[in-house]
Formats: sequence, C-alpha cells, structure tokens
Amino acid sequence: MAMREIPVVQLGLGGVGRALIEQVIAAESMSVPARRWRAHPRWIAVADSRGLLSRPEGLPPSDLRNVLDVKGQGSGLDGLDGFVAGGSDDFLGRLLHRTDEPGILVDVTAAQSMEDSLLKAVERGWGVVLANKRPLTSSYEAFVRLKGSGMLRHEATVGAGLPVISTIDSLLDTVDTITSIEGCLSGTLGYLCTALEDEVPFSLALHEAMAKGYTEPDPREDLSGLDVARKALILARLLDWNLEMNDVQVEPLHPPAMAEMTREDFMDSASALDDTYARRAAEARSKGNVLRYVASIRDGACIVGLREVLATELTGSLRGTDSIVAIQTARYSRSPLIVAGAGAGREVTAAGVLGDTLSLAREMAV
Amino acid sequence: MAMREIPVVQLGLGGVGRALIEQVIAAESMSVPARRWRAHPRWIAVADSRGLLSRPEGLPPSDLRNVLDVKGQGSGLDGLDGFVAGGSDDFLGRLLHRTDEPGILVDVTAAQSMEDSLLKAVERGWGVVLANKRPLTSSYEAFVRLKGSGMLRHEATVGAGLPVISTIDSLLDTVDTITSIEGCLSGTLGYLCTALEDEVPFSLALHEAMAKGYTEPDPREDLSGLDVARKALILARLLDWNLEMNDVQVEPLHPPAMAEMTREDFMDSASALDDTYARRAAEARSKGNVLRYVASIRDGACIVGLREVLATELTGSLRGTDSIVAIQTARYSRSPLIVAGAGAGREVTAAGVLGDTLSLAREMAV
Repeated sequence: MAMREIPVVQLGLGGVGRALIEQVIAAESMSVPARRWRAHPRWIAVADSRGLLSRPEGLPPSDLRNVLDVKGQGSGLDGLDGFVAGGSDDFLGRLLHRTDEPGILVDVTAAQSMEDSLLKAVERGWGVVLANKRPLTSSYEAFVRLKGSGMLRHEATVGAGLPVISTIDSLLDTVDTITSIEGCLSGTLGYLCTALEDEVPFSLALHEAMAKGYTEPDPREDLSGLDVARKALILARLLDWNLEMNDVQVEPLHPPAMAEMTREDFMDSASALDDTYARRAAEARSKGNVLRYVASIRDGACIVGLREVLATELTGSLRGTDSIVAIQTARYSRSPLIVAGAGAGREVTAAGVLGDTLSLAREMAV
Repeated sequence: MAMREIPVVQLGLGGVGRALIEQVIAAESMSVPARRWRAHPRWIAVADSRGLLSRPEGLPPSDLRNVLDVKGQGSGLDGLDGFVAGGSDDFLGRLLHRTDEPGILVDVTAAQSMEDSLLKAVERGWGVVLANKRPLTSSYEAFVRLKGSGMLRHEATVGAGLPVISTIDSLLDTVDTITSIEGCLSGTLGYLCTALEDEVPFSLALHEAMAKGYTEPDPREDLSGLDVARKALILARLLDWNLEMNDVQVEPLHPPAMAEMTREDFMDSASALDDTYARRAAEARSKGNVLRYVASIRDGACIVGLREVLATELTGSLRGTDSIVAIQTARYSRSPLIVAGAGAGREVTAAGVLGDTLSLAREMAV
C-alpha cells in the first residue's frame, strides 16, 4: 500500500531549520519513511525572510542538500533557483494555494505576528507545526483558536524534543486533572545555576556560557527570563488558564538598569552581580539547597524565577543545560510524572518538529 | 464537523479493564470527546473469558455502568443482558465480523496465545491496543508482524501510562540512534529496594508490599523478575533486536529451590532471605550506593537484576513504587532522556490504554 504524501512547507532556515532538513535527508536516505512513518510528509517548499525554494511535486534530496550548502546569515535561499521575493503575508497565501490539497506548515522561525497567517492556514485545512513560541504567546484568543483546531502541534516550544506537550495533552485527553507543572526550562540558566552551585563567579559562568554558544547573542535575552516565561505561559494555557504574558511573574537575573546598557557595557559590568549571586548560592548551600531557575504553574499563578530547591531532589540533581518538567496530577499525585533531558539545541529541537510533522501527517493521511 | 466514530472491542475486565471503562464514562460525561478527542472511539463490546456484552451501535454509558456494577471475580459480564458464551478464537472472529468497518481491539487481559487472533484482527484492518505484554513476548516473528503493521499501540506494556514506548518510537522515527535503555520497571521490586535502603528486613517489606496490594497474589511472580524481563524484551525488540525470552538474563530475587514451594511455605520461609539482602544493602551503603532492580538493554545484551547504583544519581533517587526509564541516544548522549513516575497501577495503566486508543482512532478516522 503506497503511503499518502502530505505536502510540507517549511518557514525558517536558521539552526533548527537546517537541522530539520538534515534529518529529512537522513530519513529518506535510510528508507525510514517506508519502514516506519505510515504517512509521508514531503517537503515542497522551504522559505525564509528573503527567499523561497519550492517544487509542487516535492523537493528532491539534491535540492534539500543545496539549501544546506548555501552559506550566509539569515538566508540559505538567496541565489537558489526558484528564488522569489517573499516574506509577506500575501506570499504565504500564494504558497498555500500552490498545492491542491492541504498540507503542513512548519514554522521554525522566531518571527512575531505569525498568528493570522497560521490561522488562515488552519482554516484552509492545513496542519501547523511550531518551534516558534511567539504565535502561542500573543493573545489568548489566538492560542485557543490555533490549539482548538486540533491541527496544531508544538512539542518543540517547551523542552525541544522532550515529550512535554504531547504528555500534557494525553493526560488531559484521558481525563486526568493536572494540579501543577514545575520545571527548569532554560539550558542557559541551568548552566549558570550549576556553575553557581560549583562556586564559579556569575560573570565568569556567563562568559563561559556565551563562549559555548549556550546563550543568545545578547545574553540578557536569556537572563531576562522572558524565554522561560513564554514556555510557562504556553504550559498554563494548555490547562485552559486565560493568561497573557503580563500575567506571568518573572524575576530577571539582571537588575532593570542593566537592561538599558549596550551589550558591551553589560558584559563589562556583569561582575558587579558576582557578589549577589555568590551570597545567594552560599545561603542555599548552608541549608542543603541549590539554586535553580524554576517555572511554576500552580494554584492559578504562573511564576518564573530563581528558587532554592533541595540538592537531593530531582530538580536539584539536574546538571548543566538539561531541562526537567514535573507534572503533578490526580493520578500522579504521590510523586509527579517527570520528563528530563537535553531541552535545548538545534538537533533535539528539530527532532521535536519532525515528530510533530509525522504525527499530523498520519492523522491527515488516511 | 461530526467526528468519525471508531468501534472499540475491549477484551478483559480486571482492574485495568474496569478503570478503563470508568475513564470512558468520565470522558463522555464531561464532553471530553467533543472538546479534545478529534476522533471518537466508541465502545461496542466488552468481553472477558466468560461473557460478552455488545451493541453494534455502541454501548451507552448506562450499559458501561452496568458492567462495572456487576461484582464477581474474573467475570463482570456474567448474567448481563447480551451475554453469550465466549472465550474461543472463533468467538473473537465472529465479534470482529459484527461491525462493517474496522475498529480497535483493546487487550487488557493477561491471556497467553493471543498473537494469532490479534494478527487476524490487524490483517482485517483493525487497530490493536495492548496492556497485555504476552502477545509481544512470544515469538520475535509475531512481534515484528504486529509492530510492523503500524496498527499496534502498546504504551501500557512498559511503565503503564508513562510515555515510554511512544518516546522510543518517536526517537526512531526521527532518525535518532538509541544506544541504551535502562530503567526500574517494577513497582513491587522498587518498593522492596527502597525498604532495603531504609534497613527494613526483606521478608517484612515483602509482607508489607503484599498487604498494600503491590504484588501479584503469589509474590514470586514479581520476585522472579519475569515481569521485568518481559518489559525489557519488548524494549529490546523495539530496537530491532531479534531476541526471545530465553535470551534475557534474569536474576530472580528468590533462590530456585523456593520456586517449588507452596505459596504459604514460601511466605513462611521468606525470612531466610533477610540476612542475604541486609548484607547486600549494607555493602552498597558503605560505598554510597543503593540497590535497585534494573533492566538494562545495552551492547546487544538484555539483563535484568539487582544492581548497585549511586544514591545521588536519578535511578538512586527513585523511591517506592515509581518507575524510571533512561534512554541514551546519539542526540541524548551527554545525559539521557528520562521519563519517571508511577509506572504501575490500574488507573495509570488504563490511561495508557485510553491514550493509545485515541491515537489509533485519530489515524483511522480521517
């Protein structure tokens, strides 16, 4: 029995987008679709803000390899055959119209204001797969419309490839009652917390994290807690909590005044924070605790910040850039359901996106 | 848009089977199918070794409640309207023929020799959901045919409702390479190991575990390690390892001679094992370790037995009846992907079965 093919349009060609294409090429070259997939998502277009490569009959591996071979910041598509000026909403509309049957739209950008385009796609019967958190952290109404369509998958928005979203969805599908979700959801901040535990000065750990590529180009994007707050908001909304970003209580790891500095000035003055964090870490240590940057969704409140946890408990035993999510429910009440492991990185994030794409394709393919 | 209904036939009405029906009734009464399910599995028959209740148009909640109300060991269906003599292979064939379209066969029995019937169901286009491990631990060939059909789900066979099987399947679908799977997969043996850690004598812990309902009626079924060995074999076979039960190296927690005793004699003489296990626990403690009953699928070998692990590592921090599975892969290499939580119990097992049923129904329903 030939597998139904489902057309896929990929938006975004940064680190995750490239890793995703690498995984698709690897799967095809090892005949994984025929052996395992039960439905065949077929990449027909790859687009970013500056270009588009598309073939309605599907991009052959050679084309996908070309996409990866093209170097250049922000656009791997510049100069490829098939390039058209893109980036507008209208462009997406035309793209979706190119295929006769609904397919899957994969958003691995970090673009804002994608909600309307994604909702249009869903209304036309398309599936949507997101690594991009922003479409789910704008208005609650947009979240409800996207999620409620049943055509959305977004595993990679929290914990990258870890089965967090799918597990929560399944608990709710099987009539369990989720009482709290707690977790460490930032690889960057996890790295810093482990360093503080090991008595490394804050500013030194920060420079190390940057050198290892764990942070955003401006590390204040991580230190602000905003990325963790977005993840926490998505988890809270899964529980039908009608919250907006403003409702998430966030403790940033740098004082407000430092948000106004240039990046260079901030990095130069980061050592001013060393004493504060060394003291907090020592205080925690004296009680057998360690510091962790924790997201807590509990009792109607969505709180993100530095917290002391027992060194011997699971969250305390977490090291380095790993993530952990602990879900307490009516059935998992004595101890929570726990998912842990690498929760950031381009390959595991891409795997989360590919798994979602398969899951949607299987439901669309019968 | 009306959801497609998928007929479901449930085999087995023990603790898990009853919990499953309770969850279906709860879901229907809270309109969860309309709000969340995207496909509607509709129970049309419930059968056990002695009886069958079926309505081709679907069993209404009142009928499902009647099934639960009927008391009696081993058969909740005896004496119900619609009862017919059942239990034979032929019976299953007739049952599958009652509906015009393929449905889902749910096996929550502990029956042996179900493979042929399940394969017949799959060949007729039916989906199969298992909590029953035995159909997957007979011949490797039967496993490959069932699993290879793409119509099998068996989350509840390892770790009950924890996302273990689905996570492994998704890692393989997304072209990751699994290098090892290790875990504590028995609530009963986890309870005993934690008791040994707390310096409770082995025989006392065993009596406590029995009193709390954690063990099989004859606790040697748990102590033999056979149940864990079955789970380990299923995990190994997911990795395409061509192994049979005989290939699993199992360390039983009672000496061979004790397997021949009556249950009463065994319980009376269990205290003869106290010194052995107190010594092993003390030995572990002296090295900062604890004892855990570990299943290890690694380097081509599938090994199940008592092992010392660091008290501070994740497996060592596990307490009581909880399960943990650690999956090491090419992508999750520095630290494994971990799933942990209650891995036994009728409600979480039933939730695993219901989640699988939904997953299959969604793929069959479009």
